[in-house]
Amino acid sequence: MSTPSAATPLRVALLGCGVVGSSVARMLTEGAGDLAARVGAPLELVGIAVRRAGRDRSDLPVDPALFTTDAEELVTRADIVIEVIGGIEPARSLLLRAMEHGASVVTANKALLAEDGPTLYAAAARHGVDIYFEAAVAGAIPILRPIRESLAGDEVTKVLGIVNGTTNYVLDKMDSTGMGFAEAVEQAQALGYAEADPTADVEGFDAAAKAAILASLAFHSRVGSEHVYREGITEVTAADIAAAAAMDHVVKLLAICERTRDASGTVGVSVRVHPAMIPRTHPLGSVRDAYNAVFVEADAAGELMFYGKGAGGDPTASAVLGDVVAVARHRVGGGRGPGESAYADIPVLEMGAARTRYHIALDVDDRPGVLAQVATAFAEHDVSIEAVRQEGVTDDTGQTRANLIVVTHTATDAALRATVNALSGLDTVREVTSVMRVEGS
Amino acid sequence: MSTPSAATPLRVALLGCGVVGSSVARMLTEGAGDLAARVGAPLELVGIAVRRAGRDRSDLPVDPALFTTDAEELVTRADIVIEVIGGIEPARSLLLRAMEHGASVVTANKALLAEDGPTLYAAAARHGVDIYFEAAVAGAIPILRPIRESLAGDEVTKVLGIVNGTTNYVLDKMDSTGMGFAEAVEQAQALGYAEADPTADVEGFDAAAKAAILASLAFHSRVGSEHVYREGITEVTAADIAAAAAMDHVVKLLAICERTRDASGTVGVSVRVHPAMIPRTHPLGSVRDAYNAVFVEADAAGELMFYGKGAGGDPTASAVLGDVVAVARHRVGGGRGPGESAYADIPVLEMGAARTRYHIALDVDDRPGVLAQVATAFAEHDVSIEAVRQEGVTDDTGQTRANLIVVTHTATDAALRATVNALSGLDTVREVTSVMRVEGS
Repeated sequence: MSTPSAATPLRVALLGCGVVGSSVARMLTEGAGDLAARVGAPLELVGIAVRRAGRDRSDLPVDPALFTTDAEELVTRADIVIEVIGGIEPARSLLLRAMEHGASVVTANKALLAEDGPTLYAAAARHGVDIYFEAAVAGAIPILRPIRESLAGDEVTKVLGIVNGTTNYVLDKMDSTGMGFAEAVEQAQALGYAEADPTADVEGFDAAAKAAILASLAFHSRVGSEHVYREGITEVTAADIAAAAAMDHVVKLLAICERTRDASGTVGVSVRVHPAMIPRTHPLGSVRDAYNAVFVEADAAGELMFYGKGAGGDPTASAVLGDVVAVARHRVGGGRGPGESAYADIPVLEMGAARTRYHIALDVDDRPGVLAQVATAFAEHDVSIEAVRQEGVTDDTGQTRANLIVVTHTATDAALRATVNALSGLDTVREVTSVMRVEGS
Repeated sequence: MSTPSAATPLRVALLGCGVVGSSVARMLTEGAGDLAARVGAPLELVGIAVRRAGRDRSDLPVDPALFTTDAEELVTRADIVIEVIGGIEPARSLLLRAMEHGASVVTANKALLAEDGPTLYAAAARHGVDIYFEAAVAGAIPILRPIRESLAGDEVTKVLGIVNGTTNYVLDKMDSTGMGFAEAVEQAQALGYAEADPTADVEGFDAAAKAAILASLAFHSRVGSEHVYREGITEVTAADIAAAAAMDHVVKLLAICERTRDASGTVGVSVRVHPAMIPRTHPLGSVRDAYNAVFVEADAAGELMFYGKGAGGDPTASAVLGDVVAVARHRVGGGRGPGESAYADIPVLEMGAARTRYHIALDVDDRPGVLAQVATAFAEHDVSIEAVRQEGVTDDTGQTRANLIVVTHTATDAALRATVNALSGLDTVREVTSVMRVEGS
């Protein structure tokens, strides 16, 4: 790795020129003076790799000669390579090639990092270069640097994150208007908050990749997407939202990374993404629209929260440029940022070992002994009940039924699931109408 | 600066063993294994400088032989010096001496940094060592590193911070219970949230030092305590809190750093600490008890907020230890953290040039023409009115008076002050009963 003098420009290559890439190109160009002052050397944009040549990009304040379709060549002539293509390939190969050629890299690619981060981190270590990726989680919000660096002297015990803006928008609309899931998704699509195919967001894949990255950093261990238990929000109903509201709770899709112990007492990490009810008074309870927020609990620091925009060209570019300044400063002044820290090697626990609470709605016969039967099912699985609410209703056939709402204390997910199975088999229980986890209390 | 091998321990000296120092000593000792893994070398606590020898400190898990009253000697035999004494001297001399002897330093000393930071930053640059100070602002909340590093590629436009837990506790109690200032301070003292002499907190000196540090980093300029306009909360009345509540606002002591322009069009920075009404729906509006939070607006990132504990031994020690790991990593792997960045050299504007809004309560005669007279006073100073509310009251003498509440649009503080002066001189205005700034909309 060469260390240029203050006067030698650092060559920056940009891979990808979509929404984020365009913002990065603009900020690199328009902010050149400030960036040079902050880095100690000018940053010179030496090329922008795009998939198709010839597209009109005259709105960008960059020399048209910078555009190239030859990304493989471009990465060999840069000190810093910024990757905002997304997806696994060719992003991975290009980043590896860039590092082989001595470049430090900055990427926003959460899917790649969650799938194969250790390969990239090892390459960075081998070639003595930096790999930074603040933009991969929660867009503009500085969250990875605080976890990796600011909390490096503390022990993180739990991370609770709203890290997907699309699903937060959908759930917030359902909460504030009473509309159903499908209608809320349509509205999110109309406003550009959701893709035409919203699967990656609403099924929790995007949040799961981010959960893996957060857990890896928070617990100094290797956690990949494949370790993350994942449930999306497609089955969240207006009734679930109303039931949450009745308890002064709100439903959020949460990425949860938690240090815990399994039944044998082994310390492990629970990493999961699922919808959950949280109290409206919780700091995450008031995160509206497409905003993101990450709530962190640490032994010494206590409760922290980080809030801001989780997506969009400029917000994501802000995070990318912060990383570019950091790696550029290292090129000028020497040193490297923190590499992978996986020394703790804490195992990831099965979802069954996660300790959580359930909110369960049951459609039951309204006759004596029902509550006793239900309560027994909980007791037999060692799950204690925090609250029960029952409302009698008369249905079309004139029979008297009741809606029974049970909120549990903390128990293992396995015990809670077994309880729900047992409830389904009771003759007095017509239907388990909804099951949702409760977090944040 | 020597670069020890991974096996060579880094010698750490701790100056001060009060509430924060005790937590630091405990975390250094009990977390030694994790810290060594994260740094790449063991951290060896080589001494703890205290003012008085012989005090019983057997509750701390450290060798009693480490305590010394000779801080001047101690700083000469350390790779890293942690200063949690506070105050200007001897802290400044000890930090300068430590850096002269090649040590990197970590300090939580906001007063010293706000009074004489540039002297310390220059010494760090001269000796090629690090000076880190995350704990100096907002305790456990990672805020300086995000501003300095994460937002280094962006342009911060405004920082609004609740950075003093004592005053937030007092104002929150006044808001939630209706109690007066004196009673709320007593309660804060009883709970240990306020000192016996609460002046530094309630008069805004503590917040002003933090505002200076935040402004320096956010705007890459030199801002000291002496540049900060400061008003405390001692004159905030229960009536002010109630008036805020009537608009669905809440009163907070805010540290405000803002990039703006003065009347001549010159770009400058407004740095001020004063109580202000902010909407309850603003992210800062729900910050309760003694919590701190910092709201940041940046060109590309948009709105960000950082929330957590602003004081206390363990939370502050968390921030200190994060810095210790960072500077220790530099000792092991080379490189240095960002030094002072004051290249932008943006002038600090007079308070009169700050653009803000006022909430003004007037006791006026209730007769025709009063509102016209009042409105004319605003118009003559180019201040436009956003809302007026009038309530008629009959006083003891049977005369009819009115309480007139005026909320303005944004104007310069000078114009607003001149307007208030003019209002005081009107014969129909019996008294200007309260004036408070309004922020965050």
